Amino acid sequence: MASLRPVLVIAGLGTGQGTGASTARVFAKAGYSVALIARGADSVDKLAKEINESGGEAAPFPLNSYSHEDITSVWGKIRQRFTKPNYSIRVAVFNAGHGLWKGFLDITPEEVQETLQTNVAAAFAFSREAILDFKANDIQEPAGKRGSLIFTGATAAIRGNVTTSAFAAAKHGVRALSQSLAKEFGKDSIHVSHAIIDGVILTERLAQRSPQLATNPNVRLDPDSIGQTYLYLANQDRSSWTWELDLRPAHEKW
Amino acid sequence: MASLRPVLVIAGLGTGQGTGASTARVFAKAGYSVALIARGADSVDKLAKEINESGGEAAPFPLNSYSHEDITSVWGKIRQRFTKPNYSIRVAVFNAGHGLWKGFLDITPEEVQETLQTNVAAAFAFSREAILDFKANDIQEPAGKRGSLIFTGATAAIRGNVTTSAFAAAKHGVRALSQSLAKEFGKDSIHVSHAIIDGVILTERLAQRSPQLATNPNVRLDPDSIGQTYLYLANQDRSSWTWELDLRPAHEKW
Amino acid sequence: MASLRPVLVIAGLGTGQGTGASTARVFAKAGYSVALIARGADSVDKLAKEINESGGEAAPFPLNSYSHEDITSVWGKIRQRFTKPNYSIRVAVFNAGHGLWKGFLDITPEEVQETLQTNVAAAFAFSREAILDFKANDIQEPAGKRGSLIFTGATAAIRGNVTTSAFAAAKHGVRALSQSLAKEFGKDSIHVSHAIIDGVILTERLAQRSPQLATNPNVRLDPDSIGQTYLYLANQDRSSWTWELDLRPAHEKW
Amino acid sequence: MASLRPVLVIAGLGTGQGTGASTARVFAKAGYSVALIARGADSVDKLAKEINESGGEAAPFPLNSYSHEDITSVWGKIRQRFTKPNYSIRVAVFNAGHGLWKGFLDITPEEVQETLQTNVAAAFAFSREAILDFKANDIQEPAGKRGSLIFTGATAAIRGNVTTSAFAAAKHGVRALSQSLAKEFGKDSIHVSHAIIDGVILTERLAQRSPQLATNPNVRLDPDSIGQTYLYLANQDRSSWTWELDLRPAHEKW
Repeated sequence: MASLRPVLVIAGLGTGQGTGASTARVFAKAGYSVALIARGADSVDKLAKEINESGGEAAPFPLNSYSHEDITSVWGKIRQRFTKPNYSIRVAVFNAGHGLWKGFLDITPEEVQETLQTNVAAAFAFSREAILDFKANDIQEPAGKRGSLIFTGATAAIRGNVTTSAFAAAKHGVRALSQSLAKEFGKDSIHVSHAIIDGVILTERLAQRSPQLATNPNVRLDPDSIGQTYLYLANQDRSSWTWELDLRPAHEKW
Repeated sequence: MASLRPVLVIAGLGTGQGTGASTARVFAKAGYSVALIARGADSVDKLAKEINESGGEAAPFPLNSYSHEDITSVWGKIRQRFTKPNYSIRVAVFNAGHGLWKGFLDITPEEVQETLQTNVAAAFAFSREAILDFKANDIQEPAGKRGSLIFTGATAAIRGNVTTSAFAAAKHGVRALSQSLAKEFGKDSIHVSHAIIDGVILTERLAQRSPQLATNPNVRLDPDSIGQTYLYLANQDRSSWTWELDLRPAHEKW
Repeated sequence: MASLRPVLVIAGLGTGQGTGASTARVFAKAGYSVALIARGADSVDKLAKEINESGGEAAPFPLNSYSHEDITSVWGKIRQRFTKPNYSIRVAVFNAGHGLWKGFLDITPEEVQETLQTNVAAAFAFSREAILDFKANDIQEPAGKRGSLIFTGATAAIRGNVTTSAFAAAKHGVRALSQSLAKEFGKDSIHVSHAIIDGVILTERLAQRSPQLATNPNVRLDPDSIGQTYLYLANQDRSSWTWELDLRPAHEKW
Repeated sequence: MASLRPVLVIAGLGTGQGTGASTARVFAKAGYSVALIARGADSVDKLAKEINESGGEAAPFPLNSYSHEDITSVWGKIRQRFTKPNYSIRVAVFNAGHGLWKGFLDITPEEVQETLQTNVAAAFAFSREAILDFKANDIQEPAGKRGSLIFTGATAAIRGNVTTSAFAAAKHGVRALSQSLAKEFGKDSIHVSHAIIDGVILTERLAQRSPQLATNPNVRLDPDSIGQTYLYLANQDRSSWTWELDLRPAHEKW
């Protein structure tokens, strides 16, 4: 018989070593097929290959930009690849967007646009596709939901600071979107969450630059742990849903 | 001797009856010359005429859009009209942007863009011009500041809700910008504030539709009171600055 | 004709140089008679004398403790001294309570009790008397309110930290009380506010220890400015009330 | 060999059907021995018996009040019962305290004291014992922590309202304590969390009064799910700790 599998759609893979890639791996191990969205074919291809070779199922969906059109288009391709009823998109993680740490007067108008576009407008477009898909789903037991939509947030989502005017504006915006969606679609049994990541995330590149971060597990976030948290959120049953939680290393000063 | 006058630059006049117009009138009475920025020549011309005829000084600066280019251009004209050293821009109020109350799935991609542009990107462009101007100011006594930048916020700036996904994303973004600027430029003696307006604002149009709002002063915000609050913020001395306050009618349920 | 005067009741004078004393002076100059509540007869007597000698009217109301009984009792005496209809209690400021900065394990059970008592339970007792008084007032024009109740808060009211477990618990509690009261009694035209004081307040004692704080007005709060803010809050008209605002020096890092 | 078992200490069992009892059962099934603290011997005895009969290990520790003395005393007994090195207290859950929904003027001074005592002062006493115990623990792998301290919060912990002045003051206080402890003891590898329970919790008593709540899993919190969440928090590894999360039913309006 054909596989009847839940699908994770995840947008934003960065260098293929951070939250996005780890989340993809964690869900793949948990039995999800994974649709990988990112700019740049290299990172999605490499990660899809890795997951497929380790017994999971993943497919790459590179896009040129996080414009509404490109996001809508790539979701169309994902639906063709992971067709119902064999597959059912159950979890969507918006991990895209990127930071910008600059004094306010050094930020160009183009950077303001780019930051709002790749973080906020892209989150709207991604959410739209995810919600439309989820609304067509049946309610899955035992969690009792049609789907889970998870946003990767940051401290900048709850606090502006001297070098984060544009980044904080964007992350606050995504947080507001996530809360609005949680309130609007909870009654449709669609679960929306927002994770505030407060600290440095361990990647290979970072480990090379700062060996201390690699060897002291108390001072940086392990992206696998973030992925495990997302899986936990996706599995929360309908009686007790979390909209927001924070995640930080044990020894973080905050 | 020529007038040595402080100047208020205010963006966003709506129908000419709300917060923006009242703020212009309040500052004009307090001795400020006023630069009026809004889309549509009619409203700025009418209000400038009214203020000039009642003994104040105001000049209209209509723009076609709240794009970075148009905002930058209009500030250039304002500087030409209110030239140093006779005039000194001391207060800038960003009251532009507009609301959008719609279920998430009914919001078009164009509306997302428009809402982010007129609220957030426009606030960045406006703030940039204001900060650049203020930085060139001397510190004015007794308040001890180079300038005051004030943002009109809303409940949607601190809480997303079922019909406010786009509007809340934008207003959260502006709030984050205001906090970032307050932290970054406080040390340059530039005072940045954010006012959370929580309730219905009385305008003539609203009064016609709902006579109860016109006759019961406990249930709606008088825009003149908001303007007085902005004047109070602009006058706060350097020892005790407010970044954020909320304003709501006495009998508001919240 | 006898004086028909508004009365300020203020609790908490500290060393007689801080927020409480300045608020008393500011309101006295604005035409309020002032009832001074504090532990220790010395500070209240001295300040009352000073205000009376400078043409104001003040009376000292020392108490032994901030217990419910002592607070209730002292309000009884205040009502006897400032009798209706010649006087009308219009503003009550709760500035009592005191800080405690200690590592959690160094805090004794007695200190926990004392901190909760003098900050939170005392605020409940004080608020009860103020609200009962205000409810019997007529609505005063033009502000359109029966009375104003103002609480002095601190950064610890919105954020716990490593040495503030007890103090933050208490200040969070007072903030919650103030918000509850604002919501419950707004419809009775009673205005409740909470001011978050974020920074060091200049006092003579502090000025002696740190001359830099005395000479640089950008790095410490002037208690007179806080008092002016409280007067501003008390005067806000019914269409636009502030529940909460923050106050910090221009150059404060936050 | 004797059992080398982790111990959960939990305070607050209510009627034996809510969050406290479910948390005890969930941890018992997960291999924890359970120390049950509550007022009233009946509920602790009954629950201990139930857990012991289903193959778990639990012991009852009734107390007369949530005074500092009684809490300290009962922890002494717990340490005697679950002696090192066979047992190691690893998780402590403060679920005690009780609500009070009353208009402000109807709340008696005794109720203010009782509410502050059973919620806040008791949380301080309980936390002190837990932290002292945890500090003597080794760091347990793989989670990499000495212990987890979890507080049951409520919406009243983040928002005051018209009938919650005393309850909100207390719950805000506990939240501030939890944040302070999280910051102070994170560097000692002690994990402190706060769960905001936003909604009605299903108990037998409630189910009898409102059959709809019993049959519609989308509108009430299942206490077992809350217990599962606490187990999840206790198991979070040191790289990614949550201080705060919210929990509410899928269809809750918020």
